Amino acid sequence: MEVRVMKNILGANDQVAAENRAMFAEKGVYVLNLMGSPGSGKTSVLEKTMERLKDKVRMAVIEGDLFTSKDAERIDRHGVPVIQINTAGGCHLDAPMVQQVAPQLDLDSLDLLIVENVGNLVCPAEFAVGENEKAVVLSITEGADKPMKYPLIFKESAVAVLNKVDLLPYCDFDMAAATEDILTLHPGMKVIEASCAKGEGIEEWCEWLLSRVAAVKG
Amino acid sequence: MEVRVMKNILGANDQVAAENRAMFAEKGVYVLNLMGSPGSGKTSVLEKTMERLKDKVRMAVIEGDLFTSKDAERIDRHGVPVIQINTAGGCHLDAPMVQQVAPQLDLDSLDLLIVENVGNLVCPAEFAVGENEKAVVLSITEGADKPMKYPLIFKESAVAVLNKVDLLPYCDFDMAAATEDILTLHPGMKVIEASCAKGEGIEEWCEWLLSRVAAVKG
Repeated sequence: MEVRVMKNILGANDQVAAENRAMFAEKGVYVLNLMGSPGSGKTSVLEKTMERLKDKVRMAVIEGDLFTSKDAERIDRHGVPVIQINTAGGCHLDAPMVQQVAPQLDLDSLDLLIVENVGNLVCPAEFAVGENEKAVVLSITEGADKPMKYPLIFKESAVAVLNKVDLLPYCDFDMAAATEDILTLHPGMKVIEASCAKGEGIEEWCEWLLSRVAAVKG
Repeated sequence: MEVRVMKNILGANDQVAAENRAMFAEKGVYVLNLMGSPGSGKTSVLEKTMERLKDKVRMAVIEGDLFTSKDAERIDRHGVPVIQINTAGGCHLDAPMVQQVAPQLDLDSLDLLIVENVGNLVCPAEFAVGENEKAVVLSITEGADKPMKYPLIFKESAVAVLNKVDLLPYCDFDMAAATEDILTLHPGMKVIEASCAKGEGIEEWCEWLLSRVAAVKG
């Protein structure tokens, strides 16, 4: 019973996601759905991305949170257009939420839209919002067993950012095993080791992102 | 529409949770629903708990995961009875899942049952499994803003374990602010600073747990 309901919800969501995708494609905007656990560093990755790219590409951000606008305020300080979606307890963003707020963006003057999802390694991976691609941020403090325990988000994402590598000396994290598991789940997936605190991996991440934006522009 | 469906699901779940609660109460078993983000350290807290308590109270564990039995294998090494529930992608445990596996436990010879939920700071807080109380584990690496961003789980839990305090020197975590936010959300809540890696806070945690088990026994 619950399963059938979920299938209906997913079907309806996919339809709206396709509409969103068509709208963004028509405007030539590359859309990334940025996902990860609470505290994996999604907003920090975004801040580093803005510092490096905001003068190179025209970007905007949609921030998803259950409550509060703490993350949107962090984005706003960088002078990049940002829209906050509060899900009021909902565990993921969905396509109708993005469709509802999209008119607030000037899509004609955008190249890149990053949608930061609710902090959750499970549910967001099931709901497309109309993105071109998904990305997952995993903090190495979460442990190397996480890809195999939460496989869908790694299968769905085009890139995995293994964040907070500056904490590797103090954590029991097997980078080789984690990377192997990720590539077993999703062969050929891009994996980037990063530290927002130390600025590591950010250039590689931004270059990947720019190449994806360029591909949409043709 | 989606909201009404969710209400029906929650209503049905609450009914089964009440049945579970009555069953556990009749047997004099204290049940704790242990929740937290992926990698917050729930299984590590459990391992430290077993080391210290398994000869003092008769305990068992139900392990919730999307896939894999990695955590159940970690529990099993301590010689404590453990049952694995795989949700096959589902983002939380619910009462029917626990009801289904409970007959595999010898409830007559148990004092304490800990149910480790799926790694998720959102959905598990909405679904009672028949527990006496809930507990939340938050890794300090997740950031001090998390209580206000994920308030329900802190409102629902009797105790918050702020884990991995050994990483405080390397992280930008404001312990005073996090504690204040937690106590604003849930006045009087028990807050324990802990490090499974260094053994800090484990005694305080175990004493709290023993006092709860003793309260059920009368």
